[in-house]
Amino acid sequence: MTHFPFSPQLTSSSFLRIGQLSNVDLNEDIRELETELPRQHPNEIPHNEKLLSLKYESLDYDNSENQLFLEEERRINHTAFRTVEIKRWVICAMIGILTGLVACFIDIVVENLAGLKYRVVKGNIDKFTEKGGLSFSLLLWATLNASVVMVGSVIVAFIEPVAAGSGIPQIKCYLNGVKIPHVVRLKTLVIKVCGVILSVVGGLAVGKEGPMIHSGAVIAAGISQGRSTSLKRDFKIFEYFRRDTEKRDFVSAGAAAGVSAAFGAPVGGVLFSLEEGASFWNQFLTWRIFFASMISTFTLNSVLSVYHGNAWDLSSPGLINFGRFDNEKMGYTIQEIPIFIFMGVVGGILGALFNALNYWLTMFRIRYIHRPCLQVVEAMLVAAVTATVGFVMIYCSRDCQPIQGSTVAYPLQVGGAGERPSGVGGETRPCWVLWHWTSRSVPSAAGRPGSPDLPLVILSSLPPQLFCADGEYNSMATAFFNTPEKSVVNLFHDPPGSYNPMTLGMFTLMYFFLACWTYGLTVSAGVFIPSLLIGAAWGRLFGISLSYLTKGSIWADPGKYALMGAAAQLGGIVRMTLSLTVIMMEATGNVTYGFPIMLVLMTAKIVGDYFVEGLYDMHIQLQSVPFLHWEAPVTSHSLTAREVMSAPVTCLRRIERVGTVVDILSDTSSNHNGFPVVESNPDASACRCCGMVPDSLFPHQVFVERANLSLVQRRLKLKDFRDAYPRFPPIQSIHVSQDERECMIDLSEFMNPSPYTVPQEASLPRVFKLFRALGLRHLVVVDNRNEVVGMVTRKDLARYRLGKEGLEELSLAQT
Amino acid sequence: MTHFPFSPQLTSSSFLRIGQLSNVDLNEDIRELETELPRQHPNEIPHNEKLLSLKYESLDYDNSENQLFLEEERRINHTAFRTVEIKRWVICAMIGILTGLVACFIDIVVENLAGLKYRVVKGNIDKFTEKGGLSFSLLLWATLNASVVMVGSVIVAFIEPVAAGSGIPQIKCYLNGVKIPHVVRLKTLVIKVCGVILSVVGGLAVGKEGPMIHSGAVIAAGISQGRSTSLKRDFKIFEYFRRDTEKRDFVSAGAAAGVSAAFGAPVGGVLFSLEEGASFWNQFLTWRIFFASMISTFTLNSVLSVYHGNAWDLSSPGLINFGRFDNEKMGYTIQEIPIFIFMGVVGGILGALFNALNYWLTMFRIRYIHRPCLQVVEAMLVAAVTATVGFVMIYCSRDCQPIQGSTVAYPLQVGGAGERPSGVGGETRPCWVLWHWTSRSVPSAAGRPGSPDLPLVILSSLPPQLFCADGEYNSMATAFFNTPEKSVVNLFHDPPGSYNPMTLGMFTLMYFFLACWTYGLTVSAGVFIPSLLIGAAWGRLFGISLSYLTKGSIWADPGKYALMGAAAQLGGIVRMTLSLTVIMMEATGNVTYGFPIMLVLMTAKIVGDYFVEGLYDMHIQLQSVPFLHWEAPVTSHSLTAREVMSAPVTCLRRIERVGTVVDILSDTSSNHNGFPVVESNPDASACRCCGMVPDSLFPHQVFVERANLSLVQRRLKLKDFRDAYPRFPPIQSIHVSQDERECMIDLSEFMNPSPYTVPQEASLPRVFKLFRALGLRHLVVVDNRNEVVGMVTRKDLARYRLGKEGLEELSLAQT
Repeated sequence: MTHFPFSPQLTSSSFLRIGQLSNVDLNEDIRELETELPRQHPNEIPHNEKLLSLKYESLDYDNSENQLFLEEERRINHTAFRTVEIKRWVICAMIGILTGLVACFIDIVVENLAGLKYRVVKGNIDKFTEKGGLSFSLLLWATLNASVVMVGSVIVAFIEPVAAGSGIPQIKCYLNGVKIPHVVRLKTLVIKVCGVILSVVGGLAVGKEGPMIHSGAVIAAGISQGRSTSLKRDFKIFEYFRRDTEKRDFVSAGAAAGVSAAFGAPVGGVLFSLEEGASFWNQFLTWRIFFASMISTFTLNSVLSVYHGNAWDLSSPGLINFGRFDNEKMGYTIQEIPIFIFMGVVGGILGALFNALNYWLTMFRIRYIHRPCLQVVEAMLVAAVTATVGFVMIYCSRDCQPIQGSTVAYPLQVGGAGERPSGVGGETRPCWVLWHWTSRSVPSAAGRPGSPDLPLVILSSLPPQLFCADGEYNSMATAFFNTPEKSVVNLFHDPPGSYNPMTLGMFTLMYFFLACWTYGLTVSAGVFIPSLLIGAAWGRLFGISLSYLTKGSIWADPGKYALMGAAAQLGGIVRMTLSLTVIMMEATGNVTYGFPIMLVLMTAKIVGDYFVEGLYDMHIQLQSVPFLHWEAPVTSHSLTAREVMSAPVTCLRRIERVGTVVDILSDTSSNHNGFPVVESNPDASACRCCGMVPDSLFPHQVFVERANLSLVQRRLKLKDFRDAYPRFPPIQSIHVSQDERECMIDLSEFMNPSPYTVPQEASLPRVFKLFRALGLRHLVVVDNRNEVVGMVTRKDLARYRLGKEGLEELSLAQT
Repeated sequence: MTHFPFSPQLTSSSFLRIGQLSNVDLNEDIRELETELPRQHPNEIPHNEKLLSLKYESLDYDNSENQLFLEEERRINHTAFRTVEIKRWVICAMIGILTGLVACFIDIVVENLAGLKYRVVKGNIDKFTEKGGLSFSLLLWATLNASVVMVGSVIVAFIEPVAAGSGIPQIKCYLNGVKIPHVVRLKTLVIKVCGVILSVVGGLAVGKEGPMIHSGAVIAAGISQGRSTSLKRDFKIFEYFRRDTEKRDFVSAGAAAGVSAAFGAPVGGVLFSLEEGASFWNQFLTWRIFFASMISTFTLNSVLSVYHGNAWDLSSPGLINFGRFDNEKMGYTIQEIPIFIFMGVVGGILGALFNALNYWLTMFRIRYIHRPCLQVVEAMLVAAVTATVGFVMIYCSRDCQPIQGSTVAYPLQVGGAGERPSGVGGETRPCWVLWHWTSRSVPSAAGRPGSPDLPLVILSSLPPQLFCADGEYNSMATAFFNTPEKSVVNLFHDPPGSYNPMTLGMFTLMYFFLACWTYGLTVSAGVFIPSLLIGAAWGRLFGISLSYLTKGSIWADPGKYALMGAAAQLGGIVRMTLSLTVIMMEATGNVTYGFPIMLVLMTAKIVGDYFVEGLYDMHIQLQSVPFLHWEAPVTSHSLTAREVMSAPVTCLRRIERVGTVVDILSDTSSNHNGFPVVESNPDASACRCCGMVPDSLFPHQVFVERANLSLVQRRLKLKDFRDAYPRFPPIQSIHVSQDERECMIDLSEFMNPSPYTVPQEASLPRVFKLFRALGLRHLVVVDNRNEVVGMVTRKDLARYRLGKEGLEELSLAQT
């Protein structure tokens, strides 16, 4: 390090503030807003959707190429880079394996616990159906559900609130570059996994698929860093990957592995990661992500096949499998395409309705139900209501189908329960969930059994007899008295005539409201499966109606329409595009349906977008997260960098007094988490930009390890920063004496000498493109003499939005 | 336009050259190189792989946001942007439909012409087999092939050489940002389509799939611009899309639609486009690309189903369909995975061998066979040799299989040819290519016929009897005497025992060398199908060997190994990753094989990359194209922008004398096709960068439409440039009088006032990332006072490459 002479012209007073010409004074804005908002109102938190929170920081997906970094990179030779590359592959394999194992764990535990619960409840109902006093059964069911959900809700609300929900919005934000505290911690993973098991077992209208994405991401973040903050263990491996860029890439792989394990959709997983996160497509990265996804579904498949006793069978690639759609029997014709498009419209409208209702509910929750105990109470209430609704619906439903007509299609029952259930003997069966042999060909519309020569194992459930006469089963119960995954598969594959239209209609209606109420509760749970279930129910209803209208013609197979309805409803709610199409294609194991599914999803998205945005985007916006979309609003060419930037901006000089640095870092109001470095020489061009120091690479270490020298001199290594990443000690934790404050520090070593800059005349779309494509955290705005006039950060770009009446600007809030 | 006072300090002499501190003098380099190279050697063109051609220009994927552009964008309101968006969708639909129709046209014409040819040849052979004098048959076959190929080669060599080959390297380059003349012209499309039909009919070892990608791209470029240069027609529509950025997006969609039509793989198509081209992933763009792909495969499917007489059947989504792989019968077990990996290794080695041989061949061709007539002669030679080899192989092969044993699996033959071929009556059949009903379940290894209850139509061919006794067929002929697509499907699906291992071995060997010789000929043709065919042949051989070794155990189905071999061979040759996996998955219509296919492709790529790079990349490099890979070489952190940039760079002043501008534009040696604009005021900071004019947006129009004014004043519109795009009139075509030379021109209106710049200390990877991610054409390098010191263009980045011994630098050549 060279010793620069101390320049007497440098005043040691306050900060260097430049660029006073700016028309936006950020701090003023915040101060105004703060005075407007009432402080910590006990019962109600005011909130609206046109706010942008200042509490979210940005991740830095641009390597800060400071001297330390460059020195290290230049030391590494070609062979060492190959080792790094091999490590990346190893990490991806580990991510895949662990994600697959976590999915197996969830699947097996849920299956056993849910089986146990339904066995207990069904036994109880069967007992009281004979003796009278069914209200006890209802009470038992509701209490069981509520208490299980209570545990699930308590761990989320009190231990790790970020584990609530599906985690998809959080992962979207993370991949977008927003730092959400605790989102990829081991503790979050544990709470998430336990929470999702408890929610599903608690009978809520939720799925266990969405949370797998979050779980995969946490696993990836943990493995790739070679340590755990929650466990306080550092394995001293993979240190090269301890920076935002590398971590993000692995988190993409983890999210993809999660999708892959959830739906058996490795390609869909890759596309999900790319669609939601990656802004820069890199062939090698994508290939690694795909590798992780494949390993994940393969692991799940292998372990589950061993668990189910038919090793090497490899027939369950995901947590949910839609079962086999046979494209000869269930092909579609061109005439059906308008019908599918109509279903897409219905799905879009219903999805928009779902989102709008959930919007009001969420707003209500943010305002009034913000205390953990209230959140737990609400979750318990929902659990109890769900059980009650299910019970009442099953009780009131008079849709008893003869078990004979249905089980002809299931000629052979294996798994220790070959005998048909008779009377109340249900409790003695070892497991309520059974494996059936069923004919591979779904019976045709006339109800004739298919040829039984090619048997195929699909996961199904023995139809429950509840409240029906012997030899009959309750078709409402096949939908309600079951985990939602199995209900979806039943709706897809049960032969025509298994459900009465009234049952399906009532089920759709009730489940729609239940699912809508459930999403956003403080429990770990996903919305994919409930959406599919609602859609499958009305889709099947639609198919049955068509069948009536066309006098039972062969093409109106209700299972096919259930699939299209499910796609339409899910598309209408989440509004994903390519990735969802591929996920659905892979989950059906059939590429023939690709075209109609695409049409349905496209229509649902267009129609839905007309009314209200997608559920995940809506929640991101309600959280006031500064999320950057793909492009700047189309009509924003009239804005320039000068108008959007934050100014004045706090700059540091290349050689700066330690006291000044400490003061700047301590003052949160002027802290942009990154500081342009300007030339120290005291001529007219003092403000000329010559570098950039993000606070993450800021030499906190310098202060920690400081020696009593006139210039802080200990040679820092990149390792010092890597060991601290990602939680650098706050400046407040360091005591700096008065003497030390007078020392000078040379920032040359820590600053990035070639930060990206834009001229102040650049239009907003241009700034946006640069910022988004390179994943920046700070972008320095300079004039044509390269003098710093301001800085563009994430919130400056995220606050412009295309509203109904054109460009609108969000207010900044401290919440 | 404001009138700036003429500044007397501006000298009207030569150019403003600045940044003399640079250590690279580009022009010197070129001059040196030129003197080294002998001028237009008549017989041999010296060439080596370490050259970078200067003749390729760059496309500009960054919008030049000059005043005209911004004014227009600001005028357009929200609704108008929605109209633009709808137009984009309409264009994508049209791209899909037209690409599908072109694929149908190729398919139908090839099928009929090839059928005709084989009928004639077979009739002739049958006749001479009885009478003796088979050399006449050979002569007929060879002459037929050679003359058809001659026509195909002549049109390519003399009319449009860019239509040669598969077109995939060209489209890769286009999407990468390299301007290749004529690559997306209508004329190229016509030659490509005719050429590919003639090549396939001419019996070369080629496929018609690769060229579909190029065809789709041309269709997309044509439609999106709303005019055709070849036809000299301007439809005055879609004028908004007349710039490189928009055109590139549509070309991506076209390429994807081409893949989709070729392989029935819409998702694979999207991934191909992204993997090869897009550097910036945008959800809406991807979704549109997917839409075009889906429409394309759907169009092809519908038209072909109508053509084949079973409308609405939708069973042929692509030009090649691998047929149905039944995942119950042909599932894989975990024990097989090491075997698949081994096959991947074999594929990688064979692929590397193929590429290495083709490398030497291509080098030879560049040096010696560069005259069109020689190219035509070579193509004819290859055609004749291919026919001869086929004939001799069929003749010498004593692999006659009883037709009985095989046709048991084809119980029902439809299509007007139900009778079995007997004797020489072959000519009277209406079409040699027939439709069979075959059992859906491929017979098991023991050769027992599957249960015939579920019939399925697959396209197959009646086994030819050639040189075999009545009631037998020649199994070598099923591979050779057929279009390669059908041979591939036969190898995948013919029941075990259809081929003798000797036949397969000989076939693999001969076809390997033929395909290798064929790739790079001056004909339109793809390498996908020959690669698949080679792989399927050795894969099947491998499967049969395994079957022998394991005493015919059920899992060693030769069809499955043929598929894995095909994947391995193709992966070893082209080295595509995710997109190829998905294409293979979609072509088999089966997601179960995803994991083994991925493993095989990954192994083949890793092994192949160890020896030599992929075929397409190799050809791109042999053409000395400045292709930018995903990332800068890993060890290039030691280079900075200062070291890689071109300097001195020709700058223009904001107000410049017309004569100076004309001189600069006329002087090709100093023309970087883009000029930094510097401040005109004559103080110390004269070289301060204040904008950038690419020559494409340079006011040629100004000179064309000039008036006799002291300052050129006619108000230009963006439309003027759009009408001229992409072929702006060269400056030499404009006569500028001496008076006009003295006029001053104000560039403020045309220049981009906020060009991307990098400081001269930025490392090469950093510069590369900015350049690649934003698709730039020019990147101005400035010092810390914002003064221009140099410029980075594509060739400056492309010339650094990671060789065997670390970083190497390519020489620049004018070739």
